[in-house]
Amino acid sequence: MKLSCTQENLTAGLEAVAPVAGRGGSLPILQNILLEAQAGSLRLKATNLEIGVTAEVRGKIEQEGTFTVNGRLFAEYVRLLPADKVDMELSGDHLEIRGAGQQTKIHGLSAEEFPVIPEVAGRATFKIDAHLARAALSQVLFSVATTDTRPEISGALVKASGQSLTFVGTDSYRLAERSLELKTEITAPVQAIVPLRTMQELTRMLSGAEGELEITLSDNQVLFSFSDIELVSRLIVGNFPDYTQIIPQNSKTTVTLDKEPLVRAIKSASLFCRSGLNHVTFQFSQDRILVSASASNLGENIIEVPAKVEGADTDIVFDYRFVLDGLSAIDGSEAGLKLSGGTSPGVFTPIEDGYLYLVMPIRQ
Amino acid sequence: MKLSCTQENLTAGLEAVAPVAGRGGSLPILQNILLEAQAGSLRLKATNLEIGVTAEVRGKIEQEGTFTVNGRLFAEYVRLLPADKVDMELSGDHLEIRGAGQQTKIHGLSAEEFPVIPEVAGRATFKIDAHLARAALSQVLFSVATTDTRPEISGALVKASGQSLTFVGTDSYRLAERSLELKTEITAPVQAIVPLRTMQELTRMLSGAEGELEITLSDNQVLFSFSDIELVSRLIVGNFPDYTQIIPQNSKTTVTLDKEPLVRAIKSASLFCRSGLNHVTFQFSQDRILVSASASNLGENIIEVPAKVEGADTDIVFDYRFVLDGLSAIDGSEAGLKLSGGTSPGVFTPIEDGYLYLVMPIRQ
Repeated sequence: MKLSCTQENLTAGLEAVAPVAGRGGSLPILQNILLEAQAGSLRLKATNLEIGVTAEVRGKIEQEGTFTVNGRLFAEYVRLLPADKVDMELSGDHLEIRGAGQQTKIHGLSAEEFPVIPEVAGRATFKIDAHLARAALSQVLFSVATTDTRPEISGALVKASGQSLTFVGTDSYRLAERSLELKTEITAPVQAIVPLRTMQELTRMLSGAEGELEITLSDNQVLFSFSDIELVSRLIVGNFPDYTQIIPQNSKTTVTLDKEPLVRAIKSASLFCRSGLNHVTFQFSQDRILVSASASNLGENIIEVPAKVEGADTDIVFDYRFVLDGLSAIDGSEAGLKLSGGTSPGVFTPIEDGYLYLVMPIRQ
Repeated sequence: MKLSCTQENLTAGLEAVAPVAGRGGSLPILQNILLEAQAGSLRLKATNLEIGVTAEVRGKIEQEGTFTVNGRLFAEYVRLLPADKVDMELSGDHLEIRGAGQQTKIHGLSAEEFPVIPEVAGRATFKIDAHLARAALSQVLFSVATTDTRPEISGALVKASGQSLTFVGTDSYRLAERSLELKTEITAPVQAIVPLRTMQELTRMLSGAEGELEITLSDNQVLFSFSDIELVSRLIVGNFPDYTQIIPQNSKTTVTLDKEPLVRAIKSASLFCRSGLNHVTFQFSQDRILVSASASNLGENIIEVPAKVEGADTDIVFDYRFVLDGLSAIDGSEAGLKLSGGTSPGVFTPIEDGYLYLVMPIRQ
């Protein structure tokens, strides 16, 4: 194996794949990145057996070949190189790298031991704008359950139907749903649960990505393709809860609020929550929200926030962290909130459509 | 106690004192800040029994009095208030705070339980520019020993003599010394060892400070005064090592180097250090430095960095972290280095005078 490429291109490819290598795997080969110099291009691959990622790097292949080197070491080393041509050559059990003033040997392992990243035979394929997909994921992923006690909600639901793609995340205390318009219409509806970790890696890799994100679903795998990157992941087997049932269809109270003063009031009240609890009381009436909390050992705090409140007066208690999460996920300076009494979920929405954030109340 | 002041002034005072409250003390009262509304001004005090800090806050005292409230809670609460007038009144065991749309009670404790912060009867007093003092401390404190096994180096040496003030820090592996010009001449030389923690708090509080820093030394205490803040601390009892002995008086090799490419080379070489060790080899000759490291399980890396090297060729091994620390503490894009062979300390200096950073070599 003998090849050259630019430091910039190699760094971009390594930034995509290296974080997947060496995480959560005990096999030493999983710490490594596979370099495949074949058919006129360099392909970098990493896998943790659950996620596999491939990045294509433009370069000049003088001699084809394959090899694996430690992902973290190789990525950090290349990142520190000057922005110039990088010459690489396999020599025994080392990758030799030469550049201006540099002489480097990185110890590696044969490519034969590296696990095969599976191909995904598509059941359905659809395309969305990569930039919009990333923004949508950032509005949903924080609501996904981080424990494995209920595997079916430890990932994000991806469902496509007609010309609409929807991402949903829930941890049973709150739920976020975001819809996007597909570029082409889907003939038969499909849905799948993608592990949170996969979605987090995808979000990271989409940072700065231009163009389209193509999603291909098979029965037990998903493939995300964009720019020169392919991300393959297993799917979660299970039935995502029928969350549409818990979204109240009618509301008794409709609120339009400025996010900033409400966030400030919630943070202030939160200082007075009883230790270990995060209960903040919200009292909605005609033209204001009263935000309050108290604990005998700390004191109490009541803050009045002006808001437009239509319909019935309502008192409700939320875990304040969930409310803050939702408000920060909503674009713009204003938000809408629909309530159906103090024991039904509150539904936050932006002023525009396409996003919904539901929080369960705390019953006292 | 009844008073009012602006949120901005109160926040500034609390930012100085609150971090000292509730750290490293098991007494509940030490979590609290003392409010003294007396003689036309509000004084905020916090102590951890080793450090005591007082901040004076301009305000309108309607009724004198004293009280203590939890420092963290009070500081965070006030920080979140709008930039407006804050009205405070003592009511039973609560501090009541009222402002636009806010009603708050903060539970507190009587001021009688609060420890007295000692007065410092001066043995010597001297003044320096507060901004320069902060910059000087940031060049020295990172070298101070962070363990207590040798108490005499677990603080920074402060010595004043003639018209010069010097800060010194060492952990026995490296040493940093920074001198400043005093505004007035000292009649008799003085020196003291100030605990690292005190100096770190001082550096934090000096952030953005204008004007002069006055330092008053007594036999066992030190007082730092600036703006509306006073910081009192115990001194460390012991003899600071006679560090001037280890600074080589003559050098065999004199190097002038560009910091940036050397830092980059060191970071690159450091990736190839043997696990748990931080040994990087530096080879100095006529017009270059070779920076290298190797480990059989990782590989090896040799980088050539152009530099002006006068005198004898020298090979030396340093803990690379200490070299990076020193280079980042040196102002400007260039640095000087004096060497006296591979088994003597290396002495880094800026191109201008006033700062010195010495690193012990690793003997192989």
